[in-house]
Amino acid sequence: MTTLAIDAKRLLGRLRELGRIGRDGDSRLIRLAASNADKAGRDALVAWIRAAGLNVAVDRVGNIFGIWKDNANSDEAPVLLGSHIDTVINAGIYDGCYGVLSGLEVIETLKAAGYTPARPIAVAAFTNEEGVRYAPDMMGSLVYAGGLPVEEALATVGTDGSVLGAELERIGYAGAVGPGFLKPHAYVELHIEQGPVLEREGVPIGAVENLQGISWQRVTIEGEANHAGTTPMSIRRDAGHAAACVVTFLRDRARDANTPTVATVGCMSFEPNAINVIPSRATFTVDLRDPDEQRLQAEEAALAAYLEEMAADEEVTISVERLARFEPMAFDSRIVELVEDAARKRGLASKRMTSGAGHDAQMIARIAPSAMIFVPSISGISHNPREHTPDGDLIVGANILLDVVTLLAAE
Amino acid sequence: MTTLAIDAKRLLGRLRELGRIGRDGDSRLIRLAASNADKAGRDALVAWIRAAGLNVAVDRVGNIFGIWKDNANSDEAPVLLGSHIDTVINAGIYDGCYGVLSGLEVIETLKAAGYTPARPIAVAAFTNEEGVRYAPDMMGSLVYAGGLPVEEALATVGTDGSVLGAELERIGYAGAVGPGFLKPHAYVELHIEQGPVLEREGVPIGAVENLQGISWQRVTIEGEANHAGTTPMSIRRDAGHAAACVVTFLRDRARDANTPTVATVGCMSFEPNAINVIPSRATFTVDLRDPDEQRLQAEEAALAAYLEEMAADEEVTISVERLARFEPMAFDSRIVELVEDAARKRGLASKRMTSGAGHDAQMIARIAPSAMIFVPSISGISHNPREHTPDGDLIVGANILLDVVTLLAAE
Repeated sequence: MTTLAIDAKRLLGRLRELGRIGRDGDSRLIRLAASNADKAGRDALVAWIRAAGLNVAVDRVGNIFGIWKDNANSDEAPVLLGSHIDTVINAGIYDGCYGVLSGLEVIETLKAAGYTPARPIAVAAFTNEEGVRYAPDMMGSLVYAGGLPVEEALATVGTDGSVLGAELERIGYAGAVGPGFLKPHAYVELHIEQGPVLEREGVPIGAVENLQGISWQRVTIEGEANHAGTTPMSIRRDAGHAAACVVTFLRDRARDANTPTVATVGCMSFEPNAINVIPSRATFTVDLRDPDEQRLQAEEAALAAYLEEMAADEEVTISVERLARFEPMAFDSRIVELVEDAARKRGLASKRMTSGAGHDAQMIARIAPSAMIFVPSISGISHNPREHTPDGDLIVGANILLDVVTLLAAE
Repeated sequence: MTTLAIDAKRLLGRLRELGRIGRDGDSRLIRLAASNADKAGRDALVAWIRAAGLNVAVDRVGNIFGIWKDNANSDEAPVLLGSHIDTVINAGIYDGCYGVLSGLEVIETLKAAGYTPARPIAVAAFTNEEGVRYAPDMMGSLVYAGGLPVEEALATVGTDGSVLGAELERIGYAGAVGPGFLKPHAYVELHIEQGPVLEREGVPIGAVENLQGISWQRVTIEGEANHAGTTPMSIRRDAGHAAACVVTFLRDRARDANTPTVATVGCMSFEPNAINVIPSRATFTVDLRDPDEQRLQAEEAALAAYLEEMAADEEVTISVERLARFEPMAFDSRIVELVEDAARKRGLASKRMTSGAGHDAQMIARIAPSAMIFVPSISGISHNPREHTPDGDLIVGANILLDVVTLLAAE
């Protein structure tokens, strides 16, 4: 049996061409959901889908589908591939786009090879995965999976005051078909890792078996502003110091535990923020992630207990606001094994891993067996123009997707 | 011998009247140096000085003097009292004004009592002590003591783009006489403590024997921004965490040492300051104070050593910028003893103490024997509308000033 392979030149060429669409005057890549730049990116994608001879469908929330089916298999549930083509501000060219264009590439390769799938194969580009312009992120796939009513999504007001539904109308991507119109047999999303693990370990393929649970909280500590020169250390109620203690507590706990828990304090502000005034207020965010729900809850509880202790010790008042909470999600173990098998058959190492970031796959997993394939991100950098995956790794990843889809579509 | 006493009603009345001058629409007290509000405050002060029958003099940097002298003593060096009447934004009514109005009150009391001093007694209101509109603070007394050329001071551009010299001209307080024209025999400044010590210890009078040394630094820590979900704890270069370690290091060190050292991190900012991004940069200020220069240097050295260790441990880059550095200053021990004696004679407890804040007295101490008298600040609050000293304490403090001045003016 000949091993099939994707057309590397076509895939890489499209990836770069899409990456040129939506550059601003400083040549920063900005394709926010339902913007003019997003429309230009969508138009390019739709043109490629049509050129490949696939049917194009756009649902009410603007998700784009390229569907390959024939009379013999059109009653079967399709194998769905996909990701997103919207970006953050000053983005790299791989995040999301790689999964969408690889999905299309896999279909074209199979089609050109004369392969006859037992079920349709479709590629999806989900609306507003990044959530920069409209909250929440992963919106298109969330709506598709029934997790958010389409009317509610379309009424979302963006950071610029725009309304998503009106913007989709404006750019010509407010479709008629209801989200969820294709009920997938399976969903596979190929994505750059956005973390350093694969590169550091020299492993080309990540078989993503689960997705971390995420807990986002905002903590506000209220102490007492006082003169930095005249207030003895022993009687201070220093909100900044209390906040610093929480930062080191979280870091030490996560680093010393032999678990995949990660804890990050990304935002921090002091008030009145004056050099000679003891901070009266410190506000900061806590991002806790763990693939295990029990452990994530234990981390949240440990933080809460520490805050209580801190409030008493330092005579400060502490309030906590929950900003987001997602339980960990396990992907379909059978598809994860197919990914590992495919890598093995091509003589490649693979690694079972956890996705630290959120992806459309976690939404589609609600309605279909799903999994993800990761390829290495150089230095783990993402959401940044320095985001990079070597061409060889991009090609290898797309070929693994090809192999997995070939098997799933034969079922 | 009858004990002389100041006119409490007159002093408190003027303090409140001056405190009503310079209120904004939200009734916040804002009398920034050389502003229209400052002019109104100065006009009121000058009117009271004239009404008391004193000579008014204004020097080139706008310092105002009310001078009581006669033909017999006019060749002698005067006893100088004073402070400032400019304020911070949203100030209390006591800081500075209490010292100026008490100085005037003492002179009026002595004059009315028929006392004949051996040397002139003068009260000064120094320009721009707070330094909010023009840097540096304590500018008028610094110029007066010869620490800053008057031309340089007058050319200072304020936070609002104004030039101090032009503003003094505009409000009619650019005098002709050179700063330093009165060489004091002694200088005494009565002030609210702006700290909690006297109130907490129930002591009405602080005999201020020295002024802390101050070291201000800005520290910038550069790490690496990375995804909060996908970057393992072990490979993070978290600038925010490194900054938090410095905060706790400084606090623990100062609190655990049995010394008067105080250490404060008042300003803090993270970049990019996003909930799901490990901070690439943290910038914060360090305010170190100690009445002992050797110890202050040791604290600076300990911080520098810790930063070096931190840079290596956390693989971050750390840079330090010196913002200000003042050596500790000792006041004149003889005047400090006069303050203690005066308190004792009135049956009052007093406490030798260190000034944690900067004051005009530290500048005038360069050219004349100087000291300060503190009265309690409720909860140590200052630079705040809640700044408060009970009337009884204000009166007691002014009477101690009266006693000390009576002795100094007889010399």
